[in-house]
This record gives sequence, C-alpha cells and structure tokens, in this order.
Amino acid sequence: MKFETLAIIGVGLIGGSIGLAAKRRGVANRVIGAGRQRSTLDRAQALGAIDEGTLDHVEAAAQADLAVYCTPVDHIAGQILSAAPRCRPGSILTDAGSTKLAIVRAIEGRLPDGISFVGGHPLAGSEKRGSEYAHPDLFQGRVTVVTQTPATERAALERVAGFWRALGAKVRVMDPEEHDRSLAVTSHLPHLIAAALAGALSPELFELTAGGFRDTTRIAAGDPALWTGIFAQNGAAVLDALHAFTGRLAEFQKALEGGDLHALDRFLAQAKKVRDALGS
Amino acid sequence: MKFETLAIIGVGLIGGSIGLAAKRRGVANRVIGAGRQRSTLDRAQALGAIDEGTLDHVEAAAQADLAVYCTPVDHIAGQILSAAPRCRPGSILTDAGSTKLAIVRAIEGRLPDGISFVGGHPLAGSEKRGSEYAHPDLFQGRVTVVTQTPATERAALERVAGFWRALGAKVRVMDPEEHDRSLAVTSHLPHLIAAALAGALSPELFELTAGGFRDTTRIAAGDPALWTGIFAQNGAAVLDALHAFTGRLAEFQKALEGGDLHALDRFLAQAKKVRDALGS
Repeated sequence: MKFETLAIIGVGLIGGSIGLAAKRRGVANRVIGAGRQRSTLDRAQALGAIDEGTLDHVEAAAQADLAVYCTPVDHIAGQILSAAPRCRPGSILTDAGSTKLAIVRAIEGRLPDGISFVGGHPLAGSEKRGSEYAHPDLFQGRVTVVTQTPATERAALERVAGFWRALGAKVRVMDPEEHDRSLAVTSHLPHLIAAALAGALSPELFELTAGGFRDTTRIAAGDPALWTGIFAQNGAAVLDALHAFTGRLAEFQKALEGGDLHALDRFLAQAKKVRDALGS
Repeated sequence: MKFETLAIIGVGLIGGSIGLAAKRRGVANRVIGAGRQRSTLDRAQALGAIDEGTLDHVEAAAQADLAVYCTPVDHIAGQILSAAPRCRPGSILTDAGSTKLAIVRAIEGRLPDGISFVGGHPLAGSEKRGSEYAHPDLFQGRVTVVTQTPATERAALERVAGFWRALGAKVRVMDPEEHDRSLAVTSHLPHLIAAALAGALSPELFELTAGGFRDTTRIAAGDPALWTGIFAQNGAAVLDALHAFTGRLAEFQKALEGGDLHALDRFLAQAKKVRDALGS
C-alpha cells in the first residue's frame, strides 16, 4: 500500500501519529500537513510527522491522492465538502473522527465524480492533545473502524483499509450506525461518566483520592469542545447507553438498600469477569 | 518512631507493603505476619516483607507492641476483639480498612484496659492482590487517614500517626463519619461506577474499547468479596454519593436531549478543570 502524496488535515496527537507511522513505514512518499496555526505545523514538521505544512486545508487535499481528516467531528464534513471540488480525480478522502453516522450522511451523494469518501476511526489516542504526544506505533495492533454503506465504493474502501493496515492497525468494516451505537457504549458513555464523577469532586476531597479515582476520571481531562461535538453528533445512541447504565446503577442501589449482599457480590463478580477478560 | 515487634494481620498488597516499608525504614525490629495460608506467609517472608509467619492471628498480635490489621473490612473488628484479651498491656491495635465507622463503633468501649485501638486507612493500593505486588514505597507521599473520636487515646493516636509518617505517608486525622462520607465519593462510588460500566459490556464490543474504557473500568477488577464488605459497611454514604452522581447524569441528559451545546460544554469544561487540578 503506497501513496504518492498523503495530506493530513489536523496534525495533533492522531494526525501527527499518522504522519510518523506513514513516513516510518514508507506508506507515503510525501506528507503534507494542514492546520490553523503555523506553530503547530512547524512542531509537527520538526518531529518528522509531516514534510511540509500549510494553513490552507483545501490546498493540502488538492495535492493529495489520500487526505485524512483528523479535525474535530463537527468540522470534518464541512472541510471535506469544501475541498472535494478541488481534488484530483481518483483522490480518496477519509477521516479519523470519533463519530461516523453524521459525517457519512453529510458527505455521501455530495461529492464530485471521481472523488471518494470512506469514513474511518482509529481506536487510539488519549486525553492528551498535540503532535508532541504523537507516536509512530500508536495504531499498532489497535482496531481502526472503516465504514461501509451501500454507497461506499469498494476500491476506495480497500485502499483506506489497506492504508490503516499498513500503519499497523487491525481493520474492522462496519456500517456507521453500528459504529456509533458501539462507540456510545465503549467510549462516549465512559467519557460522560468520567466527567460527571470528576466534576462533582469538591477541592477538599482532592487529597482523599487515590489511583482508583484518578483512573476512573482520567479521560475527563479531554478537550471539552471536541467532546461536545461528539456528544452532539451521537446524542441518541449516548442517551440509550446512558439509560442502560442508569438501569444497572438502580439494580445495585436496590441490592444495597435491601442489604442483599449476594446480589452485590454477583454484580461485582460479573463486572470483574468482564474486566479481567478485557486485559490491562 | 520505633516498635520492637510489629504484627501484620493479612499480608497481601497492603500488609506486604507495610512490612517492606517498616523493615526498609527501620520502623520495627521484628515483623510477624499472620495469614490463613502458609503459602502466602512463605511468599511474604521470601520477599522480605515479614521475618516470620503464623496462621494464628491472635498469637501474632499477642507478641506485638503494634498490630496492623490488613484484612477485609468485615473481618477486622472481630479479629481485633478476639485478639485484644491476649495482647500485652500498652499494645496498640490499628487497621488499614477502607471503611472506618462500622469498625470503630464495633471496637470502641470493648477493649481490655491498657489496649488501645486507632482506626487507619492508607489511600494506596490497586485492583491487584497479593504481596507479590507489595512495594516499600507504596505509602510515600500518599495520605493515610487516622481516625479520632472522643474515646480515642491521644498517646495511641500519636503513635499510630507517627508509624504511618515513618512509612512515608502524609497523615490526616479525621472522625470516622467524615472518612466514610469522603471515601464514598472518592473511592466507593468510583468502584461502583466502574463495575456498572464493565459489567454491561457485551463480548462483541471488547475489541471496540480503547484506553478510555480500560482506564475508567480498571478498578472493577478488584476482589468482589472485599468490595461487597466495603459497600455493606458504608451503604448510606454510598447511596448519598450515588444520588448526587445520578443527579449530575440527569443534568447532562437534559442538556443532550435539549441540544444545549453550551450546557454540555460547560459540564465538560468544569470536569476538565477539576481533573486537571487533580494531576495524573
């Protein structure tokens, strides 16, 4: 899998890691980064994540045979639709956004002939931001979801899947709805919970926290604007996941109020079984 | 701060770390470990956490000038009450349990003359179990709560506080109710939440989890029986903390249902502020 020119729109933790991995693994001859601040681009270039940087994301995509959008989920579709008319025939556009349905729906059927879009989402990253946290092995052995709908072009899907495999990722193809429903449970709900827990902590209790509280709330340090966009785009699935979660809390509450120690133990034992199966 | 003979009842992660720290820092001339399995004692002795081991916890306490109970919270008071009549005058008994009110109430007023009890709780540890995870610096710079009630003997409190300081801990003295109310928020509720989140994950979603889910649910791997005991002893405070937490979830839900992005952003930004202040 080889691309002549790879454009990365948004060179933060994910975009920077894509650049480092693509260059390290010889997946692209040339990597152009696009961003809104020259300092960000200079840092990414100094780190070796991109060969050159531009403040004009349309210009970057226009030069590329593959453009990967690593910008906030509420910017991706707009950026792609504005760049597509300038792209060369045969160009493929993809993204790394944490939601898929809203993005895919906004783009499908609105691209010029010869330009393809395939949605993507690498399940990697952290609460950290910026290319200074980028790593060429960030995707190694991790799942990247690539979306498929009836409108998805088979050849473009294969190219995008091959791109992620070349970066070390395990590719899972699924439809955007399934992605969003799944990620509501595995990512968006945990973020909401971590935020609800962290936000309620009064300062006098800070020193009475230990590793458990810190682990459980770590992702609440993520960027609020990014996450507001994710919640807004996946609201219905998040509300469903939240409903199921509060149902489980109510189940525990009932056992605790009733002094049903066997039920508490079963609840905790079942959770431990799942968590142990998940690995560290 | 120096003790002739230190008894550690329960030589797992916490008990083993106390032994390692006490020996490394010269806090005790001799450390006796008590446990229910010879293999556990042999391992702790091989690791250098104890000098000798016994299956008879009363015998261990009878030889000690300080005995520290690192057993499950629902065993501590019973073990202390059964050992106290055999202890030497001037002996001090303390514990490392995650709850304090039930334990302190069960013991106070029921000890022979000359035997003192002071409740304790080092805010350290993890979801791991066993002395193989013990570390001599586990308590370094971490808070240990030492409890004080109107019945607490001042001299014994000072000795126990001095013991923990000698192991590297920062000591906070508080009454058992305040401890339990605080830890319901900083430790017991997070455990419940992690368990509710982990337990609901269906196997087909395992591969769609990333670092966020793993961090948020890590403590759910803790021992179910230990935690059932903790929840049972601190039920009222946990239910209060749960009520406040579900109130915050409802607040988020309302904002999400209403499409109020500013409210979502405020919610997440406030959580980030707290989490950032807490440090890694």
